[in-house]
Amino acid sequence: MANSYHRPDQKRIQALKDAANKLRILSIKCTNASNSGHPTSCCSAAEIMSVLFFNTMRYKVSFPRDPSSDRFIMSKGHCAPILYAAWQLAGLFSESELMNLRKIDSDLEGHPTPRLNFIDVATGSLGQGLGVACGMAYSGKYFDNASYRVYCLMGDGETAEGSIWEAVAFASHYKLDNLVGIVDVNRLGQSEPTSLQHNLEAYRKRFDGFGWNAVIVDGNDIEELCRAMHEANTVKGRPTCLIAKTLKGKGIPNIEDEENWHGKALGAKADEAIAAISSLISDSQLPQPQPVIDDAPGVNINEITLSEPPNYKLGDKVATRVAYGTALAKLGKSNDRVIALDGDTKNSTFAITFKKAHPERYIECYIAEQNLVGVAVGCATRDRHVAFVSTFGAFFSRAFDQIRMGAISQTKVNFCGSHAGISIGEDGPSQMALEDLAMFRTIPGGVVFYPSDAVSCERAIELAANYNGITFTRSSRPATAVLYGNDEIFEIGKAKVVVKSDNDAVTVVGAGVTLHEAISAANTLKGEGINIRVVDIFTLKPIDGDTILSSAKATNGKIITVEDHYYEGGLGEAVAGVASGERDITIRRLAVNAIPRSGPGSVLMQKFGIDSTAIVRAVKEMIA
Amino acid sequence: MANSYHRPDQKRIQALKDAANKLRILSIKCTNASNSGHPTSCCSAAEIMSVLFFNTMRYKVSFPRDPSSDRFIMSKGHCAPILYAAWQLAGLFSESELMNLRKIDSDLEGHPTPRLNFIDVATGSLGQGLGVACGMAYSGKYFDNASYRVYCLMGDGETAEGSIWEAVAFASHYKLDNLVGIVDVNRLGQSEPTSLQHNLEAYRKRFDGFGWNAVIVDGNDIEELCRAMHEANTVKGRPTCLIAKTLKGKGIPNIEDEENWHGKALGAKADEAIAAISSLISDSQLPQPQPVIDDAPGVNINEITLSEPPNYKLGDKVATRVAYGTALAKLGKSNDRVIALDGDTKNSTFAITFKKAHPERYIECYIAEQNLVGVAVGCATRDRHVAFVSTFGAFFSRAFDQIRMGAISQTKVNFCGSHAGISIGEDGPSQMALEDLAMFRTIPGGVVFYPSDAVSCERAIELAANYNGITFTRSSRPATAVLYGNDEIFEIGKAKVVVKSDNDAVTVVGAGVTLHEAISAANTLKGEGINIRVVDIFTLKPIDGDTILSSAKATNGKIITVEDHYYEGGLGEAVAGVASGERDITIRRLAVNAIPRSGPGSVLMQKFGIDSTAIVRAVKEMIA
Repeated sequence: MANSYHRPDQKRIQALKDAANKLRILSIKCTNASNSGHPTSCCSAAEIMSVLFFNTMRYKVSFPRDPSSDRFIMSKGHCAPILYAAWQLAGLFSESELMNLRKIDSDLEGHPTPRLNFIDVATGSLGQGLGVACGMAYSGKYFDNASYRVYCLMGDGETAEGSIWEAVAFASHYKLDNLVGIVDVNRLGQSEPTSLQHNLEAYRKRFDGFGWNAVIVDGNDIEELCRAMHEANTVKGRPTCLIAKTLKGKGIPNIEDEENWHGKALGAKADEAIAAISSLISDSQLPQPQPVIDDAPGVNINEITLSEPPNYKLGDKVATRVAYGTALAKLGKSNDRVIALDGDTKNSTFAITFKKAHPERYIECYIAEQNLVGVAVGCATRDRHVAFVSTFGAFFSRAFDQIRMGAISQTKVNFCGSHAGISIGEDGPSQMALEDLAMFRTIPGGVVFYPSDAVSCERAIELAANYNGITFTRSSRPATAVLYGNDEIFEIGKAKVVVKSDNDAVTVVGAGVTLHEAISAANTLKGEGINIRVVDIFTLKPIDGDTILSSAKATNGKIITVEDHYYEGGLGEAVAGVASGERDITIRRLAVNAIPRSGPGSVLMQKFGIDSTAIVRAVKEMIA
Repeated sequence: MANSYHRPDQKRIQALKDAANKLRILSIKCTNASNSGHPTSCCSAAEIMSVLFFNTMRYKVSFPRDPSSDRFIMSKGHCAPILYAAWQLAGLFSESELMNLRKIDSDLEGHPTPRLNFIDVATGSLGQGLGVACGMAYSGKYFDNASYRVYCLMGDGETAEGSIWEAVAFASHYKLDNLVGIVDVNRLGQSEPTSLQHNLEAYRKRFDGFGWNAVIVDGNDIEELCRAMHEANTVKGRPTCLIAKTLKGKGIPNIEDEENWHGKALGAKADEAIAAISSLISDSQLPQPQPVIDDAPGVNINEITLSEPPNYKLGDKVATRVAYGTALAKLGKSNDRVIALDGDTKNSTFAITFKKAHPERYIECYIAEQNLVGVAVGCATRDRHVAFVSTFGAFFSRAFDQIRMGAISQTKVNFCGSHAGISIGEDGPSQMALEDLAMFRTIPGGVVFYPSDAVSCERAIELAANYNGITFTRSSRPATAVLYGNDEIFEIGKAKVVVKSDNDAVTVVGAGVTLHEAISAANTLKGEGINIRVVDIFTLKPIDGDTILSSAKATNGKIITVEDHYYEGGLGEAVAGVASGERDITIRRLAVNAIPRSGPGSVLMQKFGIDSTAIVRAVKEMIA
């Protein structure tokens, strides 16, 4: 890469100019066909896209997700039309197909998603592309040791998102010189000019201040872009950002650089625009993409197992967060593509156990949860890695948007949130995850594990590694008794009945710390001649409707749910949802009903009515 | 403020040094009493706290929430002990009370919350303090035109959070020269050293790059801090950040600057530490806080009403997002302390209607949703403003942690999320709020409004303005018919039965676009001789259990819920939760069951089975 710069000849420059203008016309045409979309935001980026796709990037039109190809992330996802146009122009599909933009039966959606074989991650919630790009670049540099490079095109408006700066800091810290950011500084946001407008120097200072090689370029000038991309690809030891000065609607008469044209098809003005742009296009030949350097290693991320089975004694006191780290280290031993990431909480989540075993496959993301998730999603693209991400469960709320977008991105990232609920005790409400189940249950196609002992936690993590979608595992801070034998088999969507008799009066459904309270309540009640059935739900999503309903049927239709979570969206409502189709079932829900406070975990569980005493009381009231 | 700097005399310097060491000792003592907490993180900040509380800040111990007093935000909330110690030393409460730190019956929680009368907002989820401080400073400079200043102490680790940089950009853009940030660069994070360790210049370049006056100081040196604080208070046109080089555990023998001492009480090592620190303390007199400049205006934010009632005709087609803007402008006319904030979506959320009417009370926060929420929370502290925050509902997921912490902060901020659900159409899943109800329903004490027409939306916004807690209003993109007369009265927690007969077969509960589908279904079914009852839920939280149960009772226990939201945590589960205590009720839930795609809104509603056709089918199946 240390080769000196050779300016493309005029013929090539003209061909790239022509490609840019063809991309403009395609963007205008397809948004006009859909009568919606963002043609002016596309037009500002036309030269950038032309240079990337037809001069700089190495990729194969025949195999867009080739592991050795350069990666491109359109962080400003509303510019999907010009991204689609680039692949169309490159030959992946026909122009007539492009005109199906945004139609119900086309995968050319309003914002990019991996339904398309040339898209790695969904974008459209702004500020998320660079974090994903960091994960790809980290993988390329440190895990794959491969030549592929990563390009991320950002809008200027989205650089107001903090997630961008988390990623900028990460890329700088890890010296990701295989990463190139491009900011399309077209000056105009959705509803008004951006805060920095065309103050290019302000952008440069920000990226430079964070340790990047930051270069101001005319983003509508092919020659300048070619030179700057070459520089970006030769600078060592730090990432490069091109601060590209552009005009929104560039090339469109009377619309270029004007306000109030965000997100609008040109309608009747399209013909004039197309005519004006067409007049600039010569009879050039489209340059071919640069050839791929095929040096990314082959990987296998299927059928990953714990290297050794769980090894506990019944009744041992082990926190599930500890078991998480143990299981993760075992998975890492089985498969060298298992990686772990954490945000400076690894000694609390026990991701540290993995780091100790496999230090080269642990990524410290520091206190930046949005980027933590973004990097993991990036590492998991093209099925290169099985990523496990941990922090306190409460702090995943910081990255809900990234997780939501991860689902649209069809990612398989696994999350583990520790320090669930009020049982953490004295640190107080800011540290207590009490809405994490509600949050993760909304993720389409996701699995929510809530293991109650070390054995089931290890198996949950093993199941997670092999699941084709997002998983969340909720782990707890307190040490609790091992309930299952080391050979117990767990399945997604299968609950366990852990206490049972022939004449149970009520079914109590718990998970985590509350399952242990339920078992304790069962023992107390047994002493008073009352039998109850206790169900360990194991996964809240999918939830085991069969076990819930059959247990309810066996206990006179009476169910009590008890959870260390707020009332909304957690275990209780999940069970209520399952039972809602049935007559003759009544449910009493025990959960946390207000903002908690500092205090001993056991005292808080008593105070908020989710301990064994509360369960005993609820059972007695229900059968009274 | 343009006065030149007078160095404090040696006596005062010594007194401030003594105060710093007393704060250290108190922090060590109280964390030892609770046997948990973060004494070493407190010790690095002792001189900073001493200079702030006993030399720089203007405040009244007798009235900590005085409107004219300087504000202090402990963004590194785990250093609560030294913040409590400062107020204790200032005389607000006794040392013996401080020793109740983290006890169940003490408000001196592990992380600060406004249960304490000297705390404005809860901290403890890192990186959130500066955004709140920005809201306070913006209020002071532009709304109150008052002298009070805002000081925010951050940890070095938390500057990795993107939310910090959103706030940094905001403060720079709005020239908040009444804001002072202090970064306690003690080098050590929770689980390892921070990424920048003691690279003070790297911090300086970052803040400088974002347009701040950034000053490196020895953060354990009283004299340097006094001088730097004076400079910070005289620089005009931009905020100042002190990059304070400190040592974690400063002053504690063998622990100072050592790893593995995060979040641990000193235990048996406390006595030696206290002895060593005590030996440095002389017989000085504690300086009094600086006097307050009493120039913040009195405000009244009670009983805020729409300046004019809703003004629509039945059947008019008006999107609820449009009604949101109209209502907000009316509230602003009634009360000059109503403010609105948006993140460059104001032309979509219709916050622009407020901006047009009251431009001086609109804050453009650009595309930075975390800071958008933080600023609003800051503006609402000390009951100075009634803040309304809008963006696409989907993008509030970006700020879930800030909203969660807002609840712990006892904020009264009102949120309005537009573009709910798949009915937005072609923009696709990244722009569709499908988990917002689940998210906001978890907020303790919050209200979730989901108005179905323009009249009820205007009244929802009026109710929100007067509600003592967080509210969320979900607005929709499509124009829908006005259903209610302009004088209809709405209440929190009261649903409306909008279609009813004496022999209804099923109760259908809807909200927003699905209510209109339910009404359409009722008309279709009526033509076939089937009557159904249709309920407009209006608020999902609190939910009107009486109306749901009485309607169910009147319709043979049959309920159908239909919502433009995922299955989890929304309307269906809320209704299932209410009904779960009753036998003889069955519920059929219609909701979005997978990641949607681009297409016309009506086609998507059909495809995902939440339109009138789906309701008709479900009714027929349920009564078959």
